[in-house]
Amino acid sequence: MQGVYNKIGLFGFGCVGHGLYQVLQAAQDAPFLIHKVCIRDATKERPVHDLEFTTDKESLLYDPAIKIIVELTSDPDAALEIVTTALRNGKSVVSANKKMIAEHLPLLQRLQEQYGTSLLYEASSAASIPIIRNLESYFNRDNILCIQGILNGSTNYILHRMFTEQCTYAAAFAEALQSGFLEADSDNDILGYDSRFKLSILSAHAFGRYISPEQIWCRGIQGITKEDAHFAQRHGYVIKLIAGAKRSAIGIHADVAPHCIPVGEPLAGVHYADNGIQLESAFAGLQFFKGTGAGGIATGSAVWSDISAVSEGYRYRYAKKQVALPVGIPDVARGPEEEPPLLQDTLLRVYIRYTGGSFIPEELFEEIEEVFTRGATSYCIGTAQISALQHTNILQDDRVCILVLP
Amino acid sequence: MQGVYNKIGLFGFGCVGHGLYQVLQAAQDAPFLIHKVCIRDATKERPVHDLEFTTDKESLLYDPAIKIIVELTSDPDAALEIVTTALRNGKSVVSANKKMIAEHLPLLQRLQEQYGTSLLYEASSAASIPIIRNLESYFNRDNILCIQGILNGSTNYILHRMFTEQCTYAAAFAEALQSGFLEADSDNDILGYDSRFKLSILSAHAFGRYISPEQIWCRGIQGITKEDAHFAQRHGYVIKLIAGAKRSAIGIHADVAPHCIPVGEPLAGVHYADNGIQLESAFAGLQFFKGTGAGGIATGSAVWSDISAVSEGYRYRYAKKQVALPVGIPDVARGPEEEPPLLQDTLLRVYIRYTGGSFIPEELFEEIEEVFTRGATSYCIGTAQISALQHTNILQDDRVCILVLP
Repeated sequence: MQGVYNKIGLFGFGCVGHGLYQVLQAAQDAPFLIHKVCIRDATKERPVHDLEFTTDKESLLYDPAIKIIVELTSDPDAALEIVTTALRNGKSVVSANKKMIAEHLPLLQRLQEQYGTSLLYEASSAASIPIIRNLESYFNRDNILCIQGILNGSTNYILHRMFTEQCTYAAAFAEALQSGFLEADSDNDILGYDSRFKLSILSAHAFGRYISPEQIWCRGIQGITKEDAHFAQRHGYVIKLIAGAKRSAIGIHADVAPHCIPVGEPLAGVHYADNGIQLESAFAGLQFFKGTGAGGIATGSAVWSDISAVSEGYRYRYAKKQVALPVGIPDVARGPEEEPPLLQDTLLRVYIRYTGGSFIPEELFEEIEEVFTRGATSYCIGTAQISALQHTNILQDDRVCILVLP
Repeated sequence: MQGVYNKIGLFGFGCVGHGLYQVLQAAQDAPFLIHKVCIRDATKERPVHDLEFTTDKESLLYDPAIKIIVELTSDPDAALEIVTTALRNGKSVVSANKKMIAEHLPLLQRLQEQYGTSLLYEASSAASIPIIRNLESYFNRDNILCIQGILNGSTNYILHRMFTEQCTYAAAFAEALQSGFLEADSDNDILGYDSRFKLSILSAHAFGRYISPEQIWCRGIQGITKEDAHFAQRHGYVIKLIAGAKRSAIGIHADVAPHCIPVGEPLAGVHYADNGIQLESAFAGLQFFKGTGAGGIATGSAVWSDISAVSEGYRYRYAKKQVALPVGIPDVARGPEEEPPLLQDTLLRVYIRYTGGSFIPEELFEEIEEVFTRGATSYCIGTAQISALQHTNILQDDRVCILVLP
């Protein structure tokens, strides 16, 4: 190799770290070089032999030859320390740690401003799909009304298997685990937390409004059975775990929950471990993005695109904060000039199924449309306030399934 | 209105020009102002009253207060003169004229370099979908293997109506005309020329290889009947007009033709006048984009995004020209270091249907898989070289339909 390289200090060498290495290897002429790799366990066998591994993080963070720090660890606390130290040292930073970014975005924004440095994190939100970049640099003068996405590849894989091959939840789960799609802590995926972190990040770029993860109502795919899949199929739906935020004249509502999506709609066509995002904006109208939602090389390619951009001085502007709301087209785009409030409550149309009893949780519903009972299984369809769903105990019961209906 | 504005000189005030005006009106705080509008016909009634209209193009092109020229005329010759004069005068330019850009891209690139100015033209290729921007600034270090798109909203509308409401071609055509989707010269849409211009532009950004429109084999949707739609439906396909370019180890192949797309594939789900694009790249994998493919406001929003970017100094880099091909992932990504050649010929699997006779055009096929005759209608399925299809007379016959099969 010849020429002048931007030297990269890489933290972490798991699936995405290795993917980034493969991408950089394959793209011979890229002016980037992984200078050192900081890992936690020096004794672990590594699949490559031409990199310098170390456990001494200071030797990366304080090396003046390293201009770009790439943080791809799995530990959010370690990631926060690495990223904030690197920003304070004037280094450009690329990270994929959704939990760390979602939980500390206001601090990370402040540090970038204060130290005149740049932090990019495209790979944190929808793997290979360039959603943050498009929100930041293309739709920055449009007015986003709604963003809805399938942001978690592993749960989408499980749901896809339950629908297309009539797998049970348990069998699909075991398969996702074996394929390496599920995170070490699978609750993060299954209970929807991973999607919630990503929605928190995307909301900041879509609406200029930071919503911390714990402010977002979140329900995962636990409790969904083949019976629920059949219900959905009979009604022309597929079940998808949707993370969505919607802006109205009175504020922003955000939630994560399994939704029944009508067959034929774009998000219903996101299969296997893919990710998909639908944007609705005042001017560009409906936009849909779909891409690979898992895998080291696809996610590594997003990291690589960020490395390339950060080396050229690109930075997020969180531009929505400075843009006033358009008026007129369409009317729903109107809103107050100040930061839109986060709506604590909203009315959802839901299906609640319970097995092993025949109780109807009437107190949950504002209005009940339909009640069905066969044997030990019953379901209700009706409208409910999120606050009611949040405070009920019955959703803790793993014999209960809840799906949001259109 | 207060504040400092970038003054825009606008050429043309048709559907997109008016859409841009509406978008700028709606986005109160945008630091842009349409200073003057040059139109051809001063006597025509205009839907707005707060703009200065003129027929004197010099008064825009040589006004030092105007820093940005936006060219939205329907006349490619006039557009070329406007855009090249503006670039030579050091102005930033935004254009949506696909024919002019596709036919003169090498000149336009040279002028940008020579005069240090920038020409952006996102709205020329897929209306509201930010495909050029993503190829330029996000996938610029990836290696695009294939780009395939539904790039013409009006023909997609016609095909959609033929499939979903069993319209005849003639009825669907009349409806598209009435809805204002078809261009003044409808042959441009129907015969595939519009898609071909767009593919020419996208190829330059995807592969760093300019392919002039006339080098691209092109077949439109003329000749498709309800019988062909039924054939497709029986086999689980929908018919879509696809513009596609594919890179292999030996070069690039590009063509425009109606394809049978299996139901469930992303491009099969592009309905009405929408546009959709599928990218296959070495690292990011499969990416899919869908968005509004027609309409003044959606297309105007792309122009607006370009105006905003150009005012900040953004310019296309045609970056693929400088990037060597990656090796290794996957093997098909490998290729020669120099500019890839344009392949003159390629083998396609096709369906050819003819009504009113019972001849089989055996000479067209390398291999015939299937022949079917009922009454006055026959079809053949087999593989054929593009060169054979290019030189046959039978495709001039409007009783003949050709579809590319998977």
